[in-house]
Amino acid sequence: MINRFLKVREQTEFLCKPLIVEDYSVQASEFVSPPKWHLAHVTWFWEEFVLTKYAKDYSVYDEDFSFLFNSYYNNVGKRVLRPSRGLMTRPSVAEVYKYRKYVTEAMVTFMSEKPSKEILDVIEIGINHEEQHQELFVYDIKYILGNQPTFPSYGPAFETVIENQTAEFIKIKEGIYSIGHQSDGFCFDNELGNHKVYVGDFEISNKLVTNAEYLEFIEAGGYQDFNYWHDEGWSFINENKIEAPLHWYKIEGDWFHYTLNGLERVNLNQAVMHISFYEAFAFSQWKGLRLPTEFEWEIASDKFDWGQLWEWTNSAYLAYPGFSKSAGALGEYNGKFMINQMILRGGSVATPVGHTRKTYRNFFHPNLRWQFNGIRLAK
Amino acid sequence: MINRFLKVREQTEFLCKPLIVEDYSVQASEFVSPPKWHLAHVTWFWEEFVLTKYAKDYSVYDEDFSFLFNSYYNNVGKRVLRPSRGLMTRPSVAEVYKYRKYVTEAMVTFMSEKPSKEILDVIEIGINHEEQHQELFVYDIKYILGNQPTFPSYGPAFETVIENQTAEFIKIKEGIYSIGHQSDGFCFDNELGNHKVYVGDFEISNKLVTNAEYLEFIEAGGYQDFNYWHDEGWSFINENKIEAPLHWYKIEGDWFHYTLNGLERVNLNQAVMHISFYEAFAFSQWKGLRLPTEFEWEIASDKFDWGQLWEWTNSAYLAYPGFSKSAGALGEYNGKFMINQMILRGGSVATPVGHTRKTYRNFFHPNLRWQFNGIRLAK
Amino acid sequence: MINRFLKVREQTEFLCKPLIVEDYSVQASEFVSPPKWHLAHVTWFWEEFVLTKYAKDYSVYDEDFSFLFNSYYNNVGKRVLRPSRGLMTRPSVAEVYKYRKYVTEAMVTFMSEKPSKEILDVIEIGINHEEQHQELFVYDIKYILGNQPTFPSYGPAFETVIENQTAEFIKIKEGIYSIGHQSDGFCFDNELGNHKVYVGDFEISNKLVTNAEYLEFIEAGGYQDFNYWHDEGWSFINENKIEAPLHWYKIEGDWFHYTLNGLERVNLNQAVMHISFYEAFAFSQWKGLRLPTEFEWEIASDKFDWGQLWEWTNSAYLAYPGFSKSAGALGEYNGKFMINQMILRGGSVATPVGHTRKTYRNFFHPNLRWQFNGIRLAK
Amino acid sequence: MINRFLKVREQTEFLCKPLIVEDYSVQASEFVSPPKWHLAHVTWFWEEFVLTKYAKDYSVYDEDFSFLFNSYYNNVGKRVLRPSRGLMTRPSVAEVYKYRKYVTEAMVTFMSEKPSKEILDVIEIGINHEEQHQELFVYDIKYILGNQPTFPSYGPAFETVIENQTAEFIKIKEGIYSIGHQSDGFCFDNELGNHKVYVGDFEISNKLVTNAEYLEFIEAGGYQDFNYWHDEGWSFINENKIEAPLHWYKIEGDWFHYTLNGLERVNLNQAVMHISFYEAFAFSQWKGLRLPTEFEWEIASDKFDWGQLWEWTNSAYLAYPGFSKSAGALGEYNGKFMINQMILRGGSVATPVGHTRKTYRNFFHPNLRWQFNGIRLAK
Repeated sequence: MINRFLKVREQTEFLCKPLIVEDYSVQASEFVSPPKWHLAHVTWFWEEFVLTKYAKDYSVYDEDFSFLFNSYYNNVGKRVLRPSRGLMTRPSVAEVYKYRKYVTEAMVTFMSEKPSKEILDVIEIGINHEEQHQELFVYDIKYILGNQPTFPSYGPAFETVIENQTAEFIKIKEGIYSIGHQSDGFCFDNELGNHKVYVGDFEISNKLVTNAEYLEFIEAGGYQDFNYWHDEGWSFINENKIEAPLHWYKIEGDWFHYTLNGLERVNLNQAVMHISFYEAFAFSQWKGLRLPTEFEWEIASDKFDWGQLWEWTNSAYLAYPGFSKSAGALGEYNGKFMINQMILRGGSVATPVGHTRKTYRNFFHPNLRWQFNGIRLAK
Repeated sequence: MINRFLKVREQTEFLCKPLIVEDYSVQASEFVSPPKWHLAHVTWFWEEFVLTKYAKDYSVYDEDFSFLFNSYYNNVGKRVLRPSRGLMTRPSVAEVYKYRKYVTEAMVTFMSEKPSKEILDVIEIGINHEEQHQELFVYDIKYILGNQPTFPSYGPAFETVIENQTAEFIKIKEGIYSIGHQSDGFCFDNELGNHKVYVGDFEISNKLVTNAEYLEFIEAGGYQDFNYWHDEGWSFINENKIEAPLHWYKIEGDWFHYTLNGLERVNLNQAVMHISFYEAFAFSQWKGLRLPTEFEWEIASDKFDWGQLWEWTNSAYLAYPGFSKSAGALGEYNGKFMINQMILRGGSVATPVGHTRKTYRNFFHPNLRWQFNGIRLAK
Repeated sequence: MINRFLKVREQTEFLCKPLIVEDYSVQASEFVSPPKWHLAHVTWFWEEFVLTKYAKDYSVYDEDFSFLFNSYYNNVGKRVLRPSRGLMTRPSVAEVYKYRKYVTEAMVTFMSEKPSKEILDVIEIGINHEEQHQELFVYDIKYILGNQPTFPSYGPAFETVIENQTAEFIKIKEGIYSIGHQSDGFCFDNELGNHKVYVGDFEISNKLVTNAEYLEFIEAGGYQDFNYWHDEGWSFINENKIEAPLHWYKIEGDWFHYTLNGLERVNLNQAVMHISFYEAFAFSQWKGLRLPTEFEWEIASDKFDWGQLWEWTNSAYLAYPGFSKSAGALGEYNGKFMINQMILRGGSVATPVGHTRKTYRNFFHPNLRWQFNGIRLAK
Repeated sequence: MINRFLKVREQTEFLCKPLIVEDYSVQASEFVSPPKWHLAHVTWFWEEFVLTKYAKDYSVYDEDFSFLFNSYYNNVGKRVLRPSRGLMTRPSVAEVYKYRKYVTEAMVTFMSEKPSKEILDVIEIGINHEEQHQELFVYDIKYILGNQPTFPSYGPAFETVIENQTAEFIKIKEGIYSIGHQSDGFCFDNELGNHKVYVGDFEISNKLVTNAEYLEFIEAGGYQDFNYWHDEGWSFINENKIEAPLHWYKIEGDWFHYTLNGLERVNLNQAVMHISFYEAFAFSQWKGLRLPTEFEWEIASDKFDWGQLWEWTNSAYLAYPGFSKSAGALGEYNGKFMINQMILRGGSVATPVGHTRKTYRNFFHPNLRWQFNGIRLAK
């Protein structure tokens, strides 16, 4: 476990390699966190939930950091409000790296002393927590760099596969299926409560929707016809003047998009990404099809490839039967977000290796587009 | 059907009896519509969807009214934006009553000519539509009068029953149940798609939560402990300084609430009403219980009394399998709202007689409190 | 004085004649007050500042009314916040007329008892206060009716004169001039502090700018060239998509404006009205001229006709030397508004007869356009 | 002039010495600009108004920079909107220093070639422009560091003198005085138009109001009594929960303030600073005195010491008689801000040496407090 821990810590820092110091502190939108904040917050998590609780003689690196780098754990005291995260110029990036080193070393020492099963469980959560932030980090850095007027390149990573195969619909028979996590491996609390679900006959595509297909929707006036849209989706695209996926730009008649390699012409054979739930839904309506539910997705997931992009489902994020949140601050991890958000299933090219599983329930508000998401159709 | 039609039309006007002219035009909040608007809008519905389409030689009462009294049917042209409804002083209330008379008479003439089954179906929708507005009308008028500094009385109507029985939990066995509308009677499109749902063992209360129980929650500091709340619910009550149900006032240490009879001391044996989904959920968490899903509610509904207050469920408003919206403007009735809203089941003392059924899917945003709603617990 | 008092009270009610009950309660914008509120507020003023203070045995009509109809006198307790004035449906219009009658009669009785000079001075202020509200009432009712999609007519009143004479510039010599009120007649506290001002040579037009001249500005692209505008003016017209005076509409290539007679074609020979200070300033810049200061206006006022429209000056609303506000609530009348507002001089067709004088200092925020204002140029 | 130019350029960079890279990019409030932006913007000014116009063969450093570092010159094309300045992580700080070096060298070469009087005038403006930004830079860096939860120190600079002398009122006789710039030296366009002003007898304090005096106002409940405040000032302090000058903190009963040396106990003998015009006005009202006009200030300025803090006057920022703005982009320097702002006179410890003069007209919106300002009383 020490090795896994160290690899995760290294990977977080590896992701920062292409950044310059200036990139670490800005908060380009309310839903984006500064890279420096990610680096420190995941470190604070180890300090707060492991070291200060279980490591005897552990001395906190800096008392202020709990205040500065808490995210949303009300149980752990006052936090810096989300929209102000981008005003913190101090501590410096170098100081945050020192903080990371200090905590990593303390964790290694602590883990060498054979912690109990209960503590190992918290460490497992910590590893998964840091992996989740690695993925958010990629979304955020793409958003930060993509909003620079100069469109700087981050480098060749996190690209989706280009496909040329034809899409086909896989048929699944009606029946009672078992849903939710049931193996011994790690999972989040929101996946627990393995339970039966009745699902009728359905068909689901073996492929994600491509840019070519999505462009047809754009060119057919999909963004101008309210009949395809939820009432709130229609308001959303009109108020925000949205006419294409996030990071797309029409330049002299051609479509380009910002990728982590810089501004590039849209590749028609890649899966469309950076669309809100509203857009995914409207596209499905225009096609005369629909999005799968999260249950359909989980049931059929072995029959198709997944993991390129998180896939919007038509399921709201709600508790499974028997869900109960943990006591204390870790109980705030998932349960309190179970309202007004939609489930995404799968994983993306930005998801750390080994972090995905078919029972994983990712969730975002229906208007968010900066995460790496895509569309799979069902009928 | 002519008789049913005429009764509904009369009932709408009967509800207005206690109003003075001044009460008809204000819009006390963005989610409230002026009484005058309700009176005219339900009338416009008959004109737009029946008379101008099917009644030969029908002459529209006033061309402007389609613009003024459309609600949200994008297919029928530009509409007065919702928040401006309260600025319309013209046409006068008297003019709107003339408009109602004109359209009612035209409808009676038209209905005497034996319209086709297809048209009768639209008339059935129109009747249900006007009934829905009768209920919204009661919510709105309570909100308008309840926001007058003088707390005027509307009169003795729409009061919930006072109960003294003890609550008990009814046990329901796991199994596959049939959900959705299946009789020949009328229903809305969102109830269609009768389908099977697997539900595990559960228990559900035979009674609504009372004011006495809810007061315990208030006094135990339920509104001050974030652990019971959704993250968005916690923000909602803090930003809006909410510490009790809507229409409640603490006066010199005692709790009063505005009822349609004026300001009265809170009756401990009545069901608590005017709470948001967030509050219903937080209350259930504090009790160590939960809200039922809409499926559990529908399955168990024959085992308990209901119809006093709409009951918040923990189900999001989503399409049933096989849902497809109608073509044209009537297709905008329900489908486009299937995002970010929660299902309420049952009916209320403000629901017109005969309008409820156990498959009825009512829905509101989780923050809304002015409708007549309550809490039933499950486990 | 009883006669003057009664005439003013009658005139307020006379102005309401063309209204229907529905028109009395709406608040069409934050800067507009409902007619019912005006009727009651000016009445409350008599009750609060005269009757309850000086009339022995006077019994207040309704204790709630002080709360409901106070405007901005912090010294007289909590008031209904300005933007909520339009939600008051009770008391009814009829009740407010009763209130007026009650107070008018009590005032007549009281005034028959030969009140002291000090009290007569307050009554003088009350008369001027009610006259001011008569003018605001006209602005407000024009705004309310002008925002009805049906553009109803109020009737033939308050029209500006149509002129065909040519404009000429009047030359005024430099010198020290005396500014401010100095006769025995009534004036507001902000006109007091008669003082000397040095003014250089200047020229001022004998006429207001006409619609014809203003249309040239519009057609020359004046609203599209930032060089003529204040930075805040430029933001103001762009954020509010302003391209013409308030109440103007371009219909099939022709300019119309809403007048109190309904929608009419713009008359080229009338003075342009309903423009913000920003627009008046931009127009003057485009002409290569400027607006007069309030001192220049006062000095030259005897040389030209005025009284059709209030005239924007390039003077900010600030205290005269020696200005000191009265003690108590009446001291809130003027002084506390001496920031971020611009002076208008003159009077308008909506100003009650006898209410104007050349030292009168009217003031509004530079973005407001619903008052009856116009432009006079200087150089 | 080359020497003066080089000194100004060096001074700008000298001010940045205490910063770390992370401090350069954030925009801590809408009225604050990131230090990096200041560094680049003043450089762009040289490039835009001198080098690209007059230096033959000059090659622009980077075409994008005009877009990125323009401030508000609409004549020079589209600019990055003010509130987004803090999202620019690229170009890097190092790159901006390279840009500075490149432009400084090009300027030196160009200036060696004996530019014409007309060009020298633009260079003079450029020097004054960069000096103005040096002062804004100090305000901004104090605001940025003062909003770090750790209150880091910038270093011992820009401290106001501590005084123990008693204040006295200087008497000035009424008369006609000459106002505005009249020497041969440099001044901004808004100081031109030397003109006569009549001023009555007045008295003005020889000292700024101290922290001790201001604390009395606080402790006497000055922030809780609306009688001292403008209506807009009262709203401003209540909406923003303001109860003391900016950068003040009450810690366990004692008043501290953030200074560029870190958090320190408030020194009673220093002049109070960081107050809005509203607070300066309310303080003067509480004292039974008033703020001077800008004319009084200019007339009396030789009789007292000034230059510690900019002094709020009770004059609005308006054009002098005969003011005319320059053609082209430099004409946007001052004129377009002549609305809704108040004049400050004097200078501050953050004003570059030699930059002040008694005719200088500084101006800010009445709610701004982050600039180095203070209060001088008159009567």
